Amino acid sequence: MKKRIFVTLKPGVLDPQGRAVHHALDGLGYAGVNDVRIGRLIELDVADDVSDETIAEMCEKLLANMVIENYRIEDAG
Amino acid sequence: MKKRIFVTLKPGVLDPQGRAVHHALDGLGYAGVNDVRIGRLIELDVADDVSDETIAEMCEKLLANMVIENYRIEDAG
Repeated sequence: MKKRIFVTLKPGVLDPQGRAVHHALDGLGYAGVNDVRIGRLIELDVADDVSDETIAEMCEKLLANMVIENYRIEDAG
Repeated sequence: MKKRIFVTLKPGVLDPQGRAVHHALDGLGYAGVNDVRIGRLIELDVADDVSDETIAEMCEKLLANMVIENYRIEDAG
């Protein structure tokens, strides 16, 4: 069973990596970019008996830094 | 207009970061994890007149390394 986890910075947390990418896009001449934020995408292939609660626990213990990041779990078929 | 870009390693490309996370999950006692792969999630806030073709161009020029990575563009409302 495949699951996708999106880990994103909480609103208000500075994102220097996103800022660098934004600046680079400006430098390449792309106008119309208002904001860039960078997060992580974690693709898990887990056994069918692993529940979403267990995956949430994994996120809180290891995959996301709950002080500055949020996570979202999604089925990936 | 918000767009989400998923940048993932192509199949077959070694993912040492994913392997480290897999190993750490094992160490925490989580059984049933078969595979972990880590990618990037890029959230773009762009002007309404920026087309998906332009965003694909940004990906190929800057956001993804086309030798080892794939990208996918999604609307995020």
